[in-house]
Amino acid sequence: MSRRQAPDASPVMIPVLAVVGVGLIGGSFAAALRQAGQVGRVLGVGRNPASLAQAQALGLIDEAVSPESAAAQADLILLATPVGGLGPMLARMRDHLRPDALITDAGSTKAEVVQAARQALGERIAAFVPGHPIAGAERTGPQAADAALYEGRKVILTPLAENPPQAVARVRAAWQACGAQVLDMTPEAHDSVLASVSHMPHFLAAAYMAQVCEAGDAQTRLALAGSGFRDFTRIAAGSPEMWRDIFLSNRSAMLAELAALRAVLDRTEAALAAGDGASLQQWLQEAALARRAWRKESS
Amino acid sequence: MSRRQAPDASPVMIPVLAVVGVGLIGGSFAAALRQAGQVGRVLGVGRNPASLAQAQALGLIDEAVSPESAAAQADLILLATPVGGLGPMLARMRDHLRPDALITDAGSTKAEVVQAARQALGERIAAFVPGHPIAGAERTGPQAADAALYEGRKVILTPLAENPPQAVARVRAAWQACGAQVLDMTPEAHDSVLASVSHMPHFLAAAYMAQVCEAGDAQTRLALAGSGFRDFTRIAAGSPEMWRDIFLSNRSAMLAELAALRAVLDRTEAALAAGDGASLQQWLQEAALARRAWRKESS
Repeated sequence: MSRRQAPDASPVMIPVLAVVGVGLIGGSFAAALRQAGQVGRVLGVGRNPASLAQAQALGLIDEAVSPESAAAQADLILLATPVGGLGPMLARMRDHLRPDALITDAGSTKAEVVQAARQALGERIAAFVPGHPIAGAERTGPQAADAALYEGRKVILTPLAENPPQAVARVRAAWQACGAQVLDMTPEAHDSVLASVSHMPHFLAAAYMAQVCEAGDAQTRLALAGSGFRDFTRIAAGSPEMWRDIFLSNRSAMLAELAALRAVLDRTEAALAAGDGASLQQWLQEAALARRAWRKESS
Repeated sequence: MSRRQAPDASPVMIPVLAVVGVGLIGGSFAAALRQAGQVGRVLGVGRNPASLAQAQALGLIDEAVSPESAAAQADLILLATPVGGLGPMLARMRDHLRPDALITDAGSTKAEVVQAARQALGERIAAFVPGHPIAGAERTGPQAADAALYEGRKVILTPLAENPPQAVARVRAAWQACGAQVLDMTPEAHDSVLASVSHMPHFLAAAYMAQVCEAGDAQTRLALAGSGFRDFTRIAAGSPEMWRDIFLSNRSAMLAELAALRAVLDRTEAALAAGDGASLQQWLQEAALARRAWRKESS
């Protein structure tokens, strides 16, 4: 049933793949595995019939099915929905899962996701290998899906004590087939690091954007905003629903990061108020050197 | 002496141009006016002999001269140095200026620049038409200069009561010849708007960058930072000296913006701590819609 066959006669890695949420993340996973010739049939699950129809028209999925039907057929299930919806979805699927089925996810936080998965899956928790691809864009929906999205990107797995090594290896292999580099971390370390380098920029960009828009002369401000503003606020265009769920799901790590940022703001704002050029210079120098060093490594 | 002649036989707009600071901003101004055929000879002034030599090798300037010599020869002088150095430079030039000379600047703040210019120029203040091109990049130095930098960009002039209309018109025409769209504002309105849409993003990006780098697991954080981090922090790589001067020069407007941002952070952080999804959603929706609307207008 797949539109592309594997380049040689060897059996595909994933005879039946199910993707819950056929947008940028799920659609790109399906597209990349198809392009790699590692998937047979792709089932799509979602709440929005128009998105599913579009995903099918784009060739990302072969068929739209119910969660129960996907569970009954799939070798691998990727949950690519907002993190708040993961528990209820797994609860619907649990009693229908094939004995050898594996489940992974693309949720941006892991500690709460693992907790929700444990509650929903009960003794089937061994089938769930939590994951998080570090890839994304402000674009959403099936039309944003791209077989090359994960090439050279990092994917973090946070394996559970219950996961058989073979299960982790199979999920790892699927992401590697998409071109990704796969790392293992604990859920807690993942959440702290991601709060810092992914969720904080979004929180700050959105807070800043709201502050600009609430000003009396907001239209003049926006008309004179240039390329610095453009890049600094790009992520503020992202899905409000998705980011609300991420912030709530990673609340304690986020509050810790926000407190640490406020400490830096206290210090730098005090230096500004005091006209302390030397302190400002030292801070700006540290930030500039760190940012320039990062660019060299990661472009 | 110019390397390119005007395309027709009409006299060039600026027989002798002097650029103080031959980096991205000053070098691009010279290059754009050369390309437009509107400049005869270009004099370069600067503290760094290597930069001046490089600017000459690149054809941005014809000759490196002292401030006094530039003042004695130039029809138009562009000051493209850090804002802190503008007063002393104008004081050195004042007694050597030609009677019909015009001076403009590219400083990122205007109220303090105007004050410094008044002090330095005394009764010659009518020759100074303050300006600010809204263009820039994290790149610096003569090699970053680009004749196309100002095409389609906005340039703000903050004319003084003392400026003859003809003087303002000539400075406006020079920027228009570079392809820029020229607007007029008061120095105070300029500083408030620029604090918001230009200086605040830099302040916040640098504060955030410092906070990430001070964490014990900074290396892991930076290794897992993705495209959101990349764009959000891009401006933090900018010149520490330049930004220190901008912040100090625009201190009161910056402190007002920082206070307004803290009010938004207080509100959004409280909503997060309380698990108030509806408030978070409303805020994120407002920010996302505003950012998406901005992109449509300004790309």
